[in-house]
Amino acid sequence: MSRLEFWFEYGSTYTYLTVARIHALASAQGVEIGWRPFLVMPIMVEQGMTEGPFLPYPQKLRYMWRDLERRAALHGVPYRKPSHYPPNTLLTARIGTLAAAEGWCREFTERTFALHWTEDVQIGTEQNLHAALAALGKEPQEVIMRAQAPEIKERLRLHTDEARTLGIFGSPSFVANGELFWGDDRLEEALAWVRR
Amino acid sequence: MSRLEFWFEYGSTYTYLTVARIHALASAQGVEIGWRPFLVMPIMVEQGMTEGPFLPYPQKLRYMWRDLERRAALHGVPYRKPSHYPPNTLLTARIGTLAAAEGWCREFTERTFALHWTEDVQIGTEQNLHAALAALGKEPQEVIMRAQAPEIKERLRLHTDEARTLGIFGSPSFVANGELFWGDDRLEEALAWVRR
Repeated sequence: MSRLEFWFEYGSTYTYLTVARIHALASAQGVEIGWRPFLVMPIMVEQGMTEGPFLPYPQKLRYMWRDLERRAALHGVPYRKPSHYPPNTLLTARIGTLAAAEGWCREFTERTFALHWTEDVQIGTEQNLHAALAALGKEPQEVIMRAQAPEIKERLRLHTDEARTLGIFGSPSFVANGELFWGDDRLEEALAWVRR
Repeated sequence: MSRLEFWFEYGSTYTYLTVARIHALASAQGVEIGWRPFLVMPIMVEQGMTEGPFLPYPQKLRYMWRDLERRAALHGVPYRKPSHYPPNTLLTARIGTLAAAEGWCREFTERTFALHWTEDVQIGTEQNLHAALAALGKEPQEVIMRAQAPEIKERLRLHTDEARTLGIFGSPSFVANGELFWGDDRLEEALAWVRR
């Protein structure tokens, strides 16, 4: 089965569109998705984008919100503008890393993004994590504890290093047979690349 | 006839894809294009992007070149990576402004971009301007002189102010019935918006 690696940061706005779309799109094309959470901010900071790609630029930030809303409508993705931006996503990324190791990263990620982007239950908060984990039949406190074990923290660091090595500088990113694509608006192109 | 305003900077890489595509796409849909040259750098500098969106970020810059090449292939647009980046586009933008006032902006812009992006005759150089103008049956020196008249310089400043007022922060940008779109990858969406 052909495979696309989906590298993502939980705090990225456009990544929501991908999280909401990728499973159905890829399944319909027989493409397997590797869900690869990482932390984009250390990479951005190293490259001089110390406050991320939007916050320092009010015009661009305003445009981003409008574009996001328009593209959600275009793709039929439910959308409600969250009250807070940006969220603190370190713990969520650690849980995502644990989930990826255990095979439930997609379900967790879809749920935590949906809570943030359709019910305004902010990613990274206890409320979001508890609701997302409980919906998957997990015991939230137990998962949160395991996600903070040294080996998971280290694994997330290694994954972030791997993203950097691949030339990744933003989220969402896709790697298709060694070819890098950046942005939800490249998802279709990345899927097509896998199937060439 | 419905109309899309196409705001652009001659030094922008992704703008080449739009310049190569927009006339045929819009014509096929019965949409009239307003060719609106402006200077993006004053706006970027005001917003803190003092070296533009790519130059300070090596990973992003490398990705941009690859993405550009891939998307040119995707759209069937001829592409040859230029030797120099970024070009100095002030005089070209002034000629574009004169051309817009006189109704030959599309032809001039298509030609000057094609020289840069398919024959490596750098935008902004005398060679590029002479070749582009001569191909349109213009007398290069005469046009270059008129493009440096105070009223053309002032007109370009006013257009750049207008772009800023519209919330434009990059090139290419499109304004469709008051709605702003940014990026060659939003061209189809902007055209669809005009026709809603």
